[in-house]
Amino acid sequence: MVQINEHYLKLTAGYLFPEIARRVNAFCEANPDAQVIRLGIGDVTEPLPPAIVAAMHSALDELANRDTFRGYGPEQGYGFLREAIATNDYQARGCDVSADEIFVSDGSKCDSGNILDIFGTGNTVAVTDPVYPVYVDTNVMSGRTGAADDAGRYAGLVYIPVTAENNFTPSLPEQPVDLIYLCYPNNPTGTVATRETLKQWVDYAKAHDALILFDAAYEAYITDPDIPHSIYDVDGARDVAIEFRSFSKNAGFTGTRCAFTVIPKSLTGKTSDGETVEIHKLWNRRHSTKFNGVSYPIQRGAEAAYSDAGREQVGGLVSFYLENARLLREGLTKVGIEVYGGVNAPYVWLKTPGGLSSWDFFDQLLQKAHLVGTPGSGFGAAGEGYFRLSAFNSRENVEAAVERFVGSLS
Amino acid sequence: MVQINEHYLKLTAGYLFPEIARRVNAFCEANPDAQVIRLGIGDVTEPLPPAIVAAMHSALDELANRDTFRGYGPEQGYGFLREAIATNDYQARGCDVSADEIFVSDGSKCDSGNILDIFGTGNTVAVTDPVYPVYVDTNVMSGRTGAADDAGRYAGLVYIPVTAENNFTPSLPEQPVDLIYLCYPNNPTGTVATRETLKQWVDYAKAHDALILFDAAYEAYITDPDIPHSIYDVDGARDVAIEFRSFSKNAGFTGTRCAFTVIPKSLTGKTSDGETVEIHKLWNRRHSTKFNGVSYPIQRGAEAAYSDAGREQVGGLVSFYLENARLLREGLTKVGIEVYGGVNAPYVWLKTPGGLSSWDFFDQLLQKAHLVGTPGSGFGAAGEGYFRLSAFNSRENVEAAVERFVGSLS
Repeated sequence: MVQINEHYLKLTAGYLFPEIARRVNAFCEANPDAQVIRLGIGDVTEPLPPAIVAAMHSALDELANRDTFRGYGPEQGYGFLREAIATNDYQARGCDVSADEIFVSDGSKCDSGNILDIFGTGNTVAVTDPVYPVYVDTNVMSGRTGAADDAGRYAGLVYIPVTAENNFTPSLPEQPVDLIYLCYPNNPTGTVATRETLKQWVDYAKAHDALILFDAAYEAYITDPDIPHSIYDVDGARDVAIEFRSFSKNAGFTGTRCAFTVIPKSLTGKTSDGETVEIHKLWNRRHSTKFNGVSYPIQRGAEAAYSDAGREQVGGLVSFYLENARLLREGLTKVGIEVYGGVNAPYVWLKTPGGLSSWDFFDQLLQKAHLVGTPGSGFGAAGEGYFRLSAFNSRENVEAAVERFVGSLS
Repeated sequence: MVQINEHYLKLTAGYLFPEIARRVNAFCEANPDAQVIRLGIGDVTEPLPPAIVAAMHSALDELANRDTFRGYGPEQGYGFLREAIATNDYQARGCDVSADEIFVSDGSKCDSGNILDIFGTGNTVAVTDPVYPVYVDTNVMSGRTGAADDAGRYAGLVYIPVTAENNFTPSLPEQPVDLIYLCYPNNPTGTVATRETLKQWVDYAKAHDALILFDAAYEAYITDPDIPHSIYDVDGARDVAIEFRSFSKNAGFTGTRCAFTVIPKSLTGKTSDGETVEIHKLWNRRHSTKFNGVSYPIQRGAEAAYSDAGREQVGGLVSFYLENARLLREGLTKVGIEVYGGVNAPYVWLKTPGGLSSWDFFDQLLQKAHLVGTPGSGFGAAGEGYFRLSAFNSRENVEAAVERFVGSLS
């Protein structure tokens, strides 16, 4: 008799974004003339940069010709892309990361879920609260938690609140933890971690033989020169951290799919007998057995993001979304909304007006302003009473969104 | 202290294909002038069909334009592709499969590994022997086996031999099993399953509440009109089978990446309490949480494989590789080699001459003929003494390969 993985049955309700889509679809069906503006999912809206498009067309032409055709590529990604990443994203910024420590993939969401494959189920896992739901859900699915309580917190996970009260800075856990998810610039709060904060976590991980899963998908949005773009900017991080990066949020690859994960060769874990094992080898085995590389033309497109023209165009996209974030932040602040983030990140995190619950405010904003955001409570119990707006939209829509948001309060 | 997944340490040696690559690289370094012909990995060599390339260029241009840009698509795949698959691959052949039962992915290798996520670890798993190594390795990694014995067989897995002695037809298992991997046309043996054989397995699965994981990646190579292209061609299969399909082996997508998995809504599994759960819902949750859809231009390329021009061009590719298979089969038969497969599949499976072990023959063929194949024992203990040649190469290389193979015997 085939038995299912019963851990899936512990998952509370649907994944956040499908639930939002369901409510928006219902609203649109009931109100077919409403011009809904979506600042919910963190999905880019601007076209792919021309330098990237040109590189992808050219790579596609290679596949159309017998002499230049390529079949299976290396599962870990082509050397040209791994080298470009290592050189530009790390070595040029003084971080000691080499090309063979980079694993190209089809998405950071995938990697941040799949990475759990190589770790034991007995590890104690810490997440911030609020948090990107994929970290939590994939731990539930893989049996690392118990059931959820009424607030949606799963037994066995260690939740570290990040709220206005602690200036969105996660405190070190009181009980020992083994795996720690950190995401900076943060999704959903749009806040950043200083070098000192990161250093504290790296030191903690070293002292406790713990491992940090560092999600830097939004690093391109950092405007403050003192904020580290990578965890490897902190001394000692090579021994305790894995880093996830993506082309989705800078080069506009959400529908194009390319990302990468850095696994330093110096990173190790233990067996239950205390034997030391290289994490790089484990992930390489996982990646080459359960993944087959990213589409060749897509990898060529990602490589072009590092060309002179590509950098300039990608930089233009990032500036464009950051200006949207500024408009949201300032427009809402002006009418007395408490707003966080949006300076080094494409997300604005706000306190719901009048103490409304996150989902009540979601429904109110949808009904009154035809505006879609993301309920803070969807990211965790400590997100209750908060709300996320994404800066990923056209200028016109962002300006209209501010106007509608303000109008809906009166 | 972060603990690793110790099941990975049970994996014997490397994954087969990296090991082959290692030996070939060593040979090439020692013999830089040798013109090595590779009939090892099942990797296509012919360019992408023009209709597919045109569709991908056009989709890429959509992404280059603000008005037609697309960000995140549905994780399950775009409706246009799911519909094209359901209509052409299933409904047109009389199989009852609907578009929303199709999950588009970046590869059958990935899906056939990832599918284990949704099943309990207590299921008893059956594989044929020889078998595609990914099925076995992903079961080892997920803790469904014990250690390997000297022949490489993992404790806890049920191996069903398919050899010349039983005409490559797997017998029903003597002990009850819950999950059964079947791959037809078969990789590595190139043999097929008759409708009667498949019916026997579907009936077995029904009788034992078991589930069949049916890998049909090579179905396009079926030339015999009586051989089913899909397990759903067999009555009752909707209640007991998942099917994996790929664009890699027909449309040449090995480096382009697109595949799909069919999960009928009628398929169910059980909890330990005997509660019935829909498998479709579980996979949908897995797919939307741990995957983010296939690149949009690639999905448009896959869709174009079903256009009139696309079908004709894909058909041309398949015929081309089948002619290669015929040349291999007939050339080797002529000099007394026992050859199987290669009629309804792009693989030729042969008995090593002189009773050599598979790896000894691999080394001999590499040294004497500068020819790379795949040792049968790499696919399982019952593959010892066999050898796989792939028909994926240029005509010139296949003709030269036959000549060199024959020459190396004298």
